[in-house]
Amino acid sequence: MPEVSIYSIALERHAETVGKFAMVSKMPVTNMQELAIAYTPGVAEPCRVINKNPDDVYKYTSKSNVVAVISDGSAVLGLGNIGAKAAIPVMEGKCCLFKNFANIDAIPICIDTQDTEEIINIVKNITSTLGGINLEDISAPRCFEIERRLKEICDIPVFHDDQHGTAVILLAAVINGLKVVGKKIEDCKIILNGAGAAGTAICKMLMMGGAKNIIALDSKGALARDMDLAPAKKALAEITNPNCEHGKLADVIKDADIFLGTSVGGVLTGEMVKTMAKDAIIFAMANPVPEIFPDEALANGAKVVGTGRSDFPNQVNNCLGFPGIFRGALDCRATQINDEMKLAAAKAIAALVPETELRPDHIIADSFDPRVVPAVAKAVAEAARATGVARL
Amino acid sequence: MPEVSIYSIALERHAETVGKFAMVSKMPVTNMQELAIAYTPGVAEPCRVINKNPDDVYKYTSKSNVVAVISDGSAVLGLGNIGAKAAIPVMEGKCCLFKNFANIDAIPICIDTQDTEEIINIVKNITSTLGGINLEDISAPRCFEIERRLKEICDIPVFHDDQHGTAVILLAAVINGLKVVGKKIEDCKIILNGAGAAGTAICKMLMMGGAKNIIALDSKGALARDMDLAPAKKALAEITNPNCEHGKLADVIKDADIFLGTSVGGVLTGEMVKTMAKDAIIFAMANPVPEIFPDEALANGAKVVGTGRSDFPNQVNNCLGFPGIFRGALDCRATQINDEMKLAAAKAIAALVPETELRPDHIIADSFDPRVVPAVAKAVAEAARATGVARL
Repeated sequence: MPEVSIYSIALERHAETVGKFAMVSKMPVTNMQELAIAYTPGVAEPCRVINKNPDDVYKYTSKSNVVAVISDGSAVLGLGNIGAKAAIPVMEGKCCLFKNFANIDAIPICIDTQDTEEIINIVKNITSTLGGINLEDISAPRCFEIERRLKEICDIPVFHDDQHGTAVILLAAVINGLKVVGKKIEDCKIILNGAGAAGTAICKMLMMGGAKNIIALDSKGALARDMDLAPAKKALAEITNPNCEHGKLADVIKDADIFLGTSVGGVLTGEMVKTMAKDAIIFAMANPVPEIFPDEALANGAKVVGTGRSDFPNQVNNCLGFPGIFRGALDCRATQINDEMKLAAAKAIAALVPETELRPDHIIADSFDPRVVPAVAKAVAEAARATGVARL
Repeated sequence: MPEVSIYSIALERHAETVGKFAMVSKMPVTNMQELAIAYTPGVAEPCRVINKNPDDVYKYTSKSNVVAVISDGSAVLGLGNIGAKAAIPVMEGKCCLFKNFANIDAIPICIDTQDTEEIINIVKNITSTLGGINLEDISAPRCFEIERRLKEICDIPVFHDDQHGTAVILLAAVINGLKVVGKKIEDCKIILNGAGAAGTAICKMLMMGGAKNIIALDSKGALARDMDLAPAKKALAEITNPNCEHGKLADVIKDADIFLGTSVGGVLTGEMVKTMAKDAIIFAMANPVPEIFPDEALANGAKVVGTGRSDFPNQVNNCLGFPGIFRGALDCRATQINDEMKLAAAKAIAALVPETELRPDHIIADSFDPRVVPAVAKAVAEAARATGVARL
């Protein structure tokens, strides 16, 4: 089992490095003159200047390049509610990705309360040193309220990557997948299995991309507006499933053009795939076991298949999104990451694989393709400027 | 004026480096295998292990070497209440000192509220990723309550450097100054001019060091227990001024052996120094203009004179204290920095100048003396172990 091996290797490496995040001083302090510049008395001058003109904080402090990766540890990977301390390795890892992919100085902050109001109050009061906030692994539906309220309060980007990062990349994948099969998104019946935080964001993103007919399902079946549902799912049902279809996955998947899974391993069978429309597109993103394995999906008629795994073609990997999205937002000093910026990111990711290179097993750029971050950052900054949320 | 020059140099350098603090990833993430170790799926393993045994957070994350420099910007240098944003250059500077002096990964956190309860609630909920908390530039008397409560709540060291760091170094200076003049601390009449946060901590530290007769003064004069005073000053008067002396500085300084100033420039005159006991010791720490300049103090009979400035002998510099104190506390994983650890730090700093080298103009080690941090750290960790607050 390769998983056992990677787990023991990872544990050993984490012990060797004793964590993954360190700090570096951008000014030397090796003598009294250097001390007088980096600290007292010289430091008083940037303080005075910022006090007179608060926007100069971007000029004289590290704020413009610092992103906090913030979690309460309530929904960490597939591990669930493991709390603040046990979540740290993931948040430190995300910080490493920010640094390695986009040269962003990311710091982990794990919050030791899961009270929505307390989290909002804590985060809003520690934004002074931050250029952006990446919310991570916060459980639904609390994550919706926390993100919405913080976006209203903060004058820096607030972005819940589990929702929007995944959605951006999936839209990019769908855009290119549809080019391969020669269909238009507005004509497609799309099944979204798994109506959690990511699933909800994916629905909205696909609709921004032109989708008209998405049916979202939770573990009990299709969500429809005539059903009695919890508030978040009710809101999702209101904007999806235009024909008010009911039933289990096996029922509603008939004649669907696209299946998107953010649910659990193995729930999509070959028999179900057979009932889908011709040249079906399937993104089975449950980890580590996808909703269906690629070979079985292809054997039952699917044309384009992707997963969240790096050992199969067409990996939907969040590293394609958040580094460039934040790089672009920081570069233009955006006050937020709005829908237009996310849409621009999705289109930029899709455009990295030109139509001449598109194949059923190659519709998304590699996560380590060095063109990704600059291309996404540029598109995001342009969209920020076009929508009036950029300060540079 | 040299100050003008250092201010403009500092401003320029801050603009060049765009702040002083950056992040570094301790693991490479340049390919899928490295990604699988630093992030998913491998990272799940340290998460699981920490979830089972929370103390392993010190083994697999950066916590053991991370200190947050936390301020609400309410009492920044001599600039006053300039708020969270304008305080950032100082906090980033302090982080640079932590890194450069003691290889501690320090991160700045500026809190955008000055409500005591909110600050306590915010800090206590973000300690998971931290090995220690350095409170900085928080105004008195709020700083007392904030530090006291956080020390009760947190299982990591909480240290308000403006109070205790200064006090530790000043006790070291007094210990060595008394060796030069051949007096014992318990026999000395000590004047502490400036009864703010630092002054209060200095009183307590000197008493731990054996002082029996300290008179603390605020801008109105000596604090005595029979006076009607604000709570913090009342508490200070209760433990000082055993003979209940009253009057202005000029009155109570008569026959004093030691003058310690944490007040404002120029308040100590040569005439006052003349009335002090023979071989007086003076530490005039107001910045940038000391309570009295060294040449004037010496001309009027003082034997040992120090200031907070680097351009005169015997500089009382906080860099002698906090880096080694935190290094020692982190090294032995102390749950707090207690009085015994502070006393050990003061004695270790004093011991760095052996009696054979002591002269009136050389009683404190240089801030950049590479022996300082290891010596202080060792003494602090030993005191932590001896008092049962060390976990290693």
